[in-house]
Amino acid sequence: MFDPVEKLKEFVRHPSISADSKFKAGMTGAREFVAGLLTSIGFVVEVVPTDLHPIILAHRSGPAHWPHVIIYGHYDVQPADPLNLWQSAAFEPEIRGKRIYGRGTADNKGPLMTHIAAVGRLLERRPDLPLRITFLIEGEEEIGSPSFPKFLHSYRDRLKADFVYLSDTGIPNEDQVVFTCGLRGLVLFDVEITCARSDLHSGLHGGVLRNPIQAVSELCASLHTPDGRVNIPGFYDDVLDVEPWEREQLAGLGTDMEKYRQFLGIPAFHTPPGYTPFEAVRFLPTLEFNGIGGGYQGEGTKTVIPSKAFVKISCRLVPNQSPAKMRELLYRTVRERVPADVTLRIVDQHEGTPYVVVPPGRSNTPKDQSPVLARAFRSADKAVAEVFGRPPLYLREGGSVPIIADIKRILGLDSLMMGLFLPDDNLHAPNESFHLGVMEKGMRASERILEGLASGA
Amino acid sequence: MFDPVEKLKEFVRHPSISADSKFKAGMTGAREFVAGLLTSIGFVVEVVPTDLHPIILAHRSGPAHWPHVIIYGHYDVQPADPLNLWQSAAFEPEIRGKRIYGRGTADNKGPLMTHIAAVGRLLERRPDLPLRITFLIEGEEEIGSPSFPKFLHSYRDRLKADFVYLSDTGIPNEDQVVFTCGLRGLVLFDVEITCARSDLHSGLHGGVLRNPIQAVSELCASLHTPDGRVNIPGFYDDVLDVEPWEREQLAGLGTDMEKYRQFLGIPAFHTPPGYTPFEAVRFLPTLEFNGIGGGYQGEGTKTVIPSKAFVKISCRLVPNQSPAKMRELLYRTVRERVPADVTLRIVDQHEGTPYVVVPPGRSNTPKDQSPVLARAFRSADKAVAEVFGRPPLYLREGGSVPIIADIKRILGLDSLMMGLFLPDDNLHAPNESFHLGVMEKGMRASERILEGLASGA
Repeated sequence: MFDPVEKLKEFVRHPSISADSKFKAGMTGAREFVAGLLTSIGFVVEVVPTDLHPIILAHRSGPAHWPHVIIYGHYDVQPADPLNLWQSAAFEPEIRGKRIYGRGTADNKGPLMTHIAAVGRLLERRPDLPLRITFLIEGEEEIGSPSFPKFLHSYRDRLKADFVYLSDTGIPNEDQVVFTCGLRGLVLFDVEITCARSDLHSGLHGGVLRNPIQAVSELCASLHTPDGRVNIPGFYDDVLDVEPWEREQLAGLGTDMEKYRQFLGIPAFHTPPGYTPFEAVRFLPTLEFNGIGGGYQGEGTKTVIPSKAFVKISCRLVPNQSPAKMRELLYRTVRERVPADVTLRIVDQHEGTPYVVVPPGRSNTPKDQSPVLARAFRSADKAVAEVFGRPPLYLREGGSVPIIADIKRILGLDSLMMGLFLPDDNLHAPNESFHLGVMEKGMRASERILEGLASGA
Repeated sequence: MFDPVEKLKEFVRHPSISADSKFKAGMTGAREFVAGLLTSIGFVVEVVPTDLHPIILAHRSGPAHWPHVIIYGHYDVQPADPLNLWQSAAFEPEIRGKRIYGRGTADNKGPLMTHIAAVGRLLERRPDLPLRITFLIEGEEEIGSPSFPKFLHSYRDRLKADFVYLSDTGIPNEDQVVFTCGLRGLVLFDVEITCARSDLHSGLHGGVLRNPIQAVSELCASLHTPDGRVNIPGFYDDVLDVEPWEREQLAGLGTDMEKYRQFLGIPAFHTPPGYTPFEAVRFLPTLEFNGIGGGYQGEGTKTVIPSKAFVKISCRLVPNQSPAKMRELLYRTVRERVPADVTLRIVDQHEGTPYVVVPPGRSNTPKDQSPVLARAFRSADKAVAEVFGRPPLYLREGGSVPIIADIKRILGLDSLMMGLFLPDDNLHAPNESFHLGVMEKGMRASERILEGLASGA
C-alpha cells in the first residue's frame, strides 16, 4: 500500500484551481494523479469529459447482490490568493506539528485521500471483499458543479447504487465526528424597482415622485417581524418539526454561545423566539438580503433621485420546503407589497432543494429506509465510536451542498456525510491545513465502515 | 459699442472647463476676454487669485450716495462630453435659426454677455449715470464655487453694495420672464450600519444575527408616511407658510401636470397632500435617498450576510429651516430608530441654507426691506413688462444655489435673479444653445432695469 501522507503531498502539489483557466495543467495533473492512484489499488478508471473539467469515475465491480457504494470527492481546489499570507507555499505541502499545510489539504484532497487509502488498505487485506465501490470525483465543486447534474442524468444507469459516501463537511474538534444529516436549500432572486425614466435632480424634482430606494426599503422592512421571524404568511408552513433527538444531538456538540457571539463580532444574537442560534441556523428557513444598491455610491454626494434600485434576496430552505413553492410565495408577497405605481422586475436566480437523511432507529426514520443505508449508518456509528473513542453526532447543518440534493433527485440516493475537517483548518483561506491525527483515525474508521457494510452482505 | 452676438461667439470659443485641468488655457483665455471686454466699456478690472480659478472683479465707482449693484456671473462652463452628440462643435459657436449653439451659450456666457452689453449700451448713452456697478465673475461655479465663500469674506469691505443682480436661472418660454425669489437649502449625510465584524456565509450563519441591509431598510422605511410626507415629528415646524400671492404667481406659469408627469416618466405623482407637484417642489422640504449600498452588487449571486450597509440621505430645506437645527433633528431621529445592537455611523456631508427674497408690496414683504432693492424690483417689473409684453412672475424654485445664500450670509445682500434660459437650452448637455431673441430682449430689459434703478437715486 502507498503512504497516504506522501501521496497527499503529491496530490496537493498539483495546483488544481478550477476557477482559473491558467491552472489547466494543475487540473490535468491532479486528475491524472488520482486516476493513477485508483488504478494502482485495482480500480477500472474512466475519465468522463464535461463542458469544462472532466469527472473521474472508477469502478470496483461485483455481483449485483453485493452492496454498492459511491464515494464522492473533488480534485479541484479554491484559488490560493492572497499568496503573501501563506506561511509556506500554497502548493508546496509542508508538515508542521500535527498538520499538513497547503491549498486543498482539507478541502477536499485530504478527506478524499483518507477514503482512497482506506479502500486501498481494506482491499489489500480483503481482496475478496463483497462490496462494489464507485469513486465519483469531480473537478468543478469549487465553482458550483455546473456539469454535475447533466453528468448524473447521462450516467444514471451506470450509477445505480445503494448510497453515496463522502467527507466534505466539518467536525467541532478532533475527537468528535459529526455525520451531517440535513442541509438547507436555497431560493435566490433579485428585486428591481424603477420609478422615473432616468435619474433626476433632487432639487428640481424632489418631493413629487416615489424614490425607488424608498420602495425597496419599504419592501425589505416588511419582510421580517421585530423578533426576527420572516413576516410572510405561510413561510413556515412546510418546515419539518425538530425531533427531540435532534436537539439532544446538538446539545452533545457542547456549543458555546458566547464564543460564537464573539466570533461573529456582534453585541447580541437576533434569532427567532424558541430557537438557540445553533438551532436556528440548522432547523429554520431564513430570508436574507445579500446585496442592495441604487443611486450614487461614491465618496461625497450627488443630489440625485435614482431611477432604479435593487435588492438581492436569498432564502435558506429547510426540509420539507420546496424551492418552487417557496419561490411562488415569495414572488406573490413581493408583488403585493410593492406600490402599484412603480415598475417591478423580479429576476430569477438559482435554487437548491433542502436535504435530510434520518439515521436508523430514530423517531422519524422513514419506514422504507434502504437496509443497506441503515447498515452503513450502524457500521459508521460503531466504527467511529471505536476509533475516535466517542460516538458520532447526527446533525443537520445550515449550509447548502446542492450536489447532495441533485444526487437524491436524479439518482434517488441518500448520502452518508462523515465530517473530517476542523474549524481551524482554514478552508478557502490562506494556510489551509488538514489534521494528520484526524486523517489517520478517519482512514481507520472509513476502513471499518466499509468492511462492516460489506460483512452484512 | 461692441456687437454682443459676435462677442458671445468669441467668449464661447474659449473652452473654459473649470473641472478639467487640461483646459487651463481655455480658462485663462475666457478670463482675459471678459477682463478686456469690461475694460473696453470703462470698468477698472482686477483679477483676484484664488486657490484654483481667479475671480474677476470690475468696478465702476462713484459717490457713496449712488446705488451700488453687484452683477454676478461665471466664466466657466461644464465639460462638453459626449462630443459625438453635438451637431456643431461645442467650442465653435454656430447660429442656426433663432439660436446660438455652443457649450456655455446659455450657462452662463450668454446671460452674462446680456448684462455686460446692457451696461455697455447704457453707459454709452448715459456716461454720467449715477450708479455704481461691480461685476463679480467667478470661474468655479460649475464645480461648486469652492473658493467663493473665502473670497467673499476677504473682500467683504470692497463688496458693500445694495443688492446682487444675476441671470443664472430659467424661464418657461421666451415671452415669460421669471424672477426667482426663493431657493431650497440642503442638508446631506450618510448613514452606515455595521453588524457582524466581516461578511458572513449566509448558510452557516443565516438566521442568528441582524442583517445591516435590513436595519438600513427599516430606518429608510420609517422616514416617510404612506401619503408622502416626511415622518419625523418637527420636520415641518419652521416651514414658511405659502402666501396666496405665491400660489397665484405659480398659477400664472401655466404649468401642465400631464406633460410634467410624462417628462418624469412616472405613472403617478407622489406628493404630500394639499400640494400640487409644482407647489411641493418649491414650498416643501424633502427627505430623499440619493444612494444605497451594501453586500454583493454584481451579476448572479453571492450568499453573503454583509457586514455593512449604507444610505446617502439629502434633505432639501425651505425658508426658514436652519441646516444646523435640521441636522440635529435628523441625527437624533436616526439614532432613535436604529436598533441598539448595531454599530451606527453618521457621516456629515455638506449643507446649504435656504433663501428667500420677497418683492415689494406683497403680504409678506419685510417692513425693513432695502429701498434700493425695492426700487430694483419695481424697475425690473416695469422693464420686463414693457420689453417682453408680459409682466414677470415671482417664484421660488426647488433647486439650491448655495452662492446666493453665501452672499446673503456673508455680505448681507439679497439677489435679484432674472431668469433668461429656456427649458430646451440643453444646459449641461450636448447642443447647448441660447435664444437670440431672449438675449436681445434681455439686453433691453436689463438696460432699463439699471437705468430705472439709477434714476431714483
